[in-house]
Amino acid sequence: MKTIGYYNGEYGPIEEMKVPMNDRAVYFGDGVYEAMLVKNRVIFSLEEHLDRFWRSFQALRIPFAMSREELTAELYKMVDKMDMDDPMVLYWQTSRGTAPRSHVFPKNGKANLMITVKPFAMKNMKTFRHRLLTVEDTRFFHCDIKTLNLVPNVMAAQAAEEAGCTEAVFHRGDRVTEGAHSNVSILKDGVLKTAPLDNLILPGVTRKHILELAPLCGIPVLEEPFTLEELMDADEVLVTRSTALCLKAETIDGKPIKQSAPELVQRLQEAYQEKFEKETHPSLRKS
Amino acid sequence: MKTIGYYNGEYGPIEEMKVPMNDRAVYFGDGVYEAMLVKNRVIFSLEEHLDRFWRSFQALRIPFAMSREELTAELYKMVDKMDMDDPMVLYWQTSRGTAPRSHVFPKNGKANLMITVKPFAMKNMKTFRHRLLTVEDTRFFHCDIKTLNLVPNVMAAQAAEEAGCTEAVFHRGDRVTEGAHSNVSILKDGVLKTAPLDNLILPGVTRKHILELAPLCGIPVLEEPFTLEELMDADEVLVTRSTALCLKAETIDGKPIKQSAPELVQRLQEAYQEKFEKETHPSLRKS
Repeated sequence: MKTIGYYNGEYGPIEEMKVPMNDRAVYFGDGVYEAMLVKNRVIFSLEEHLDRFWRSFQALRIPFAMSREELTAELYKMVDKMDMDDPMVLYWQTSRGTAPRSHVFPKNGKANLMITVKPFAMKNMKTFRHRLLTVEDTRFFHCDIKTLNLVPNVMAAQAAEEAGCTEAVFHRGDRVTEGAHSNVSILKDGVLKTAPLDNLILPGVTRKHILELAPLCGIPVLEEPFTLEELMDADEVLVTRSTALCLKAETIDGKPIKQSAPELVQRLQEAYQEKFEKETHPSLRKS
Repeated sequence: MKTIGYYNGEYGPIEEMKVPMNDRAVYFGDGVYEAMLVKNRVIFSLEEHLDRFWRSFQALRIPFAMSREELTAELYKMVDKMDMDDPMVLYWQTSRGTAPRSHVFPKNGKANLMITVKPFAMKNMKTFRHRLLTVEDTRFFHCDIKTLNLVPNVMAAQAAEEAGCTEAVFHRGDRVTEGAHSNVSILKDGVLKTAPLDNLILPGVTRKHILELAPLCGIPVLEEPFTLEELMDADEVLVTRSTALCLKAETIDGKPIKQSAPELVQRLQEAYQEKFEKETHPSLRKS
């Protein structure tokens, strides 16, 4: 198939798939999700996405009943139905169940599972440059949970698009939090600085990877809040996201970023590319 | 029919209705809604709900294309398909359209419309008493827009349920904002006090009604923020909501509310009941 959607055991092309009107995702956004790359039919960093997914649905007390092994098997079944080995993006979400609309949890609710797989054109880390737009962060205080409540992210991404930019960077007052669908880090005087994990940012899988790789590349890391001024004054600005890995930025609100540490960025990106190639090697294909 | 669901022109019992997996409501909660009472097949306060609906979808720039008259006609068509004249609850939502998942608005997107109508057992204003649970308000800063991003409201309503309460009351630090699905006001020394309209609360239709009725009942009104201490110390606490009108509360976090101004509450509730009966009189039935 060219694209494939799954809903509670049923399959079909995504655009033909339907979900019940009473799915709580439809009227409350009452669910959580994950999205990630697939290459050579290997799901990149699946274990870390499963870890985060478990944390997310447990935080919302969604009664997701599949085991990790069952979900993994279902995800690989989906990947195998695709007609290609090229990069794809795998997305899944669970919601609290299907029931008449009422805020209180449904009694004996059964969580729903929706999965999609489609082809995906990866951006080239060597050549792609983000143009960033800063946007006041007016989101809720549960940004560490990957929920389906994404209206502010949608509005910020659209504002960026209309400003000729490629990503929005949220800030709460002076403090930079993260991108509309990414984490944002800076390089300054040879040190990689990124916001610490709290309820203001998503614990990004790619963020975690660059924090692991940077020291191996001779780049010390500092998990500390940083300000808009520090963002503007950075040597380099990195935007990380599971479906785009580690990209650098060239402007913020139209102003050029120094980009004065290209060799550090290159070292980090090459280490990341190597990790990605190694961990999606065709020999790791599960089926 | 016993219940009826509508989606972009298709009808059926709600539990049999489906929406496309690619509806942006499903994965972003990218939409807005309204809910209200219907009695004698008259939709109560429809014009005010339409006003707010227009404000909501315009705030999110959703390309809702129907005119007010077309939507009104569609809503009444739904009401007329029901097998009863008893109180019903009418709900509708629009989302930004159906498209492959991408934060940026879809090009040439067409908004979706979903409507439901079902029987509804109204609470008795004379006898029902709310038991309230206070919950820290961790929601986003767009509470004036009636979006489908309701995870924090769901979690608060469930916390209330598990504490043996009937509604959660949000507070940002010391300041009371509103209920998980209601506005909250207090009576103190003969004055009705309620939070002013800003981005922290929904401009409730019922809130507006009691602010209009109170002066006619000899109760001055004050639209000013009030604190948790003031809530605990109130003579009476009122919980207003389109599907429950104006109910009073008896406890907050298990502590009794004074309930020392029952005659003022009664005056207000009777005025409201009169307005409701008058404005849903069978003679006003449209079809």
